Amino acid sequence: MATPQGRSPELRKDPVTNRWVIFSPARAKRPSDFKSKAPITQSQQHQECPFCLGHEHECAPEIFRVPTSGPDWKIRVIENLYPALSRTLGDPFAKNRKDDADANPNPSAGVEVLGGFGFHDVVIETPTHSVQLSDLSPEEVGEVLLAHKKRIEQIATHDSIKYVQVFKNHGASAGASMSHSHSQILALPVIPPDASVRLDSMKEFFHETGKCSVCEVSVDDLLIDESTHFISIVPFAATFPFEIWIIPRQHSSHFHELDNAKAVDLGGLLKLMLRKMSLQLNSPPFNFMLYTSPLRVTTSELPYIHWFLRIVPQLTTVAGFEIATGCHINPVFPEDAAKVLREVHDP
Amino acid sequence: MATPQGRSPELRKDPVTNRWVIFSPARAKRPSDFKSKAPITQSQQHQECPFCLGHEHECAPEIFRVPTSGPDWKIRVIENLYPALSRTLGDPFAKNRKDDADANPNPSAGVEVLGGFGFHDVVIETPTHSVQLSDLSPEEVGEVLLAHKKRIEQIATHDSIKYVQVFKNHGASAGASMSHSHSQILALPVIPPDASVRLDSMKEFFHETGKCSVCEVSVDDLLIDESTHFISIVPFAATFPFEIWIIPRQHSSHFHELDNAKAVDLGGLLKLMLRKMSLQLNSPPFNFMLYTSPLRVTTSELPYIHWFLRIVPQLTTVAGFEIATGCHINPVFPEDAAKVLREVHDP
Repeated sequence: MATPQGRSPELRKDPVTNRWVIFSPARAKRPSDFKSKAPITQSQQHQECPFCLGHEHECAPEIFRVPTSGPDWKIRVIENLYPALSRTLGDPFAKNRKDDADANPNPSAGVEVLGGFGFHDVVIETPTHSVQLSDLSPEEVGEVLLAHKKRIEQIATHDSIKYVQVFKNHGASAGASMSHSHSQILALPVIPPDASVRLDSMKEFFHETGKCSVCEVSVDDLLIDESTHFISIVPFAATFPFEIWIIPRQHSSHFHELDNAKAVDLGGLLKLMLRKMSLQLNSPPFNFMLYTSPLRVTTSELPYIHWFLRIVPQLTTVAGFEIATGCHINPVFPEDAAKVLREVHDP
Repeated sequence: MATPQGRSPELRKDPVTNRWVIFSPARAKRPSDFKSKAPITQSQQHQECPFCLGHEHECAPEIFRVPTSGPDWKIRVIENLYPALSRTLGDPFAKNRKDDADANPNPSAGVEVLGGFGFHDVVIETPTHSVQLSDLSPEEVGEVLLAHKKRIEQIATHDSIKYVQVFKNHGASAGASMSHSHSQILALPVIPPDASVRLDSMKEFFHETGKCSVCEVSVDDLLIDESTHFISIVPFAATFPFEIWIIPRQHSSHFHELDNAKAVDLGGLLKLMLRKMSLQLNSPPFNFMLYTSPLRVTTSELPYIHWFLRIVPQLTTVAGFEIATGCHINPVFPEDAAKVLREVHDP
């Protein structure tokens, strides 16, 4: 089947995610014509926004701020007013219903239940409502990343927490309920399903090749840009069109190993990727997510776990096929997306 | 942490999906207050719709119709005009780039590539634009299900096809590009990621207990309704609020084992579930998906593979946390959703 780009559909799988993705340009516009139909417009100062400077009393309790004291904060890390998990519940492993018949209305074999202990925090990335993350300087974006790092290190002191997910939702259709620029940190007493799959994939690759799958990731025509300590690519089997990974050049398992110099360097490359995405794709709603190691891994696992940051613009609808199969249909070949993003220049 | 419903958050995992889900009523309205904010309104006859009676020439080629001949069809199965996979490509296993250096621009270890061979068909469920699936009689819904069955049996004759996914997208935000009632069939040369996870989970449960995880599924307070041959439940670790599974009472691995009597019985229960969902949740966009066995399994695998139909109303936004972790946050406890759906009565 010929397509507008003269390419047949293809199925691809990479060793990091280990998931088949269908690349199907038949449905697509030219890669360079991809635009968001629901761009995020610059939001103006909003009198009612609790994340704005001066409205701190309307928020859930503060955990820390940057700088650490004084009224003129640049970043605030606070509790989520509507947390998905509760920081006040006890050790969830005491509540496993397998061992607790009274608490178990559905005592079927194989069912597992844990009390919902965890942390769900918000990082307010700027005191100013109209400023977006990509408007900040590389140093300021670096400070946001260092706030993530600091909070992960604090959470890591809780033995029950197994995994910390840092993520950002930008735009209502990407899941943001507040337009004021913020990211979130959700700390879980379990290793979530896709993290388990990723670790198993990385482990399998390591056992077969003796190498780290992320150190060995395809670059060639997939490179978008690079900085001193990081590269940015469209992954070979990208799940979403124009998905971007930012990968540390040097092998590192835990995001919170990031030092100050690397944070500024990463801040600059993240800012550049967000700017390129916004310019090329008409300010799309997006998510970014840190893919880091579970907190409690053994030294034998470190050689194959390599953290990276993933940025996903929201350009397509996830429908029944994707929900059922976990296999996504991506209308843009990664090498085409990488070329388009490589060639966008910030005016 | 007390919630409006007096319940703490909880993590649950069931042995069919083997995925942790966070149940977090803190963010929720009362379960009975859940409504779609973007209801699907009844669409009127549309002169330009190629799926309507009399517009057959505007569609991609027909595969078969019901009844099998004559102009007054009730159901048409046609090729998708924009297929995700191509039925004219050759055997994809000949194109594996591991063995084909010329075709491989990214010959990294662990990367797999297959030519995009497959089938992507559309089932037009009614000739009338304004009729929805839930408006049909149980017998007519049964005929749609038998059309799915017939097409699966045809596709199964192709040795390269490993898995067939039947799904329906209802409403634009659930991925439907056409408002005329239809479902889709996508046949793949690989077993997709979530099907592999499900089969591994079912296998593990069987090896531990000697039983089928779906035969043993939690019912109790999760039952919504039942018919002669099927039950409908909200699963114990439902990924989405008000998610529904319809399960054959009798162990059966392949959906296409469905006989005519069971098809009518399933048609009636599916219609009832769609009606209840529509009445309770304000005509939400939804997806339904058939979870059936891969085509080529051995007889030793059949005892633990049990097909079911899954219905998911689209009430929440999938955001960075879910994309990153595969762990969903569900604001409605399954037993509460089941109670609400059980008590809805079709006027």
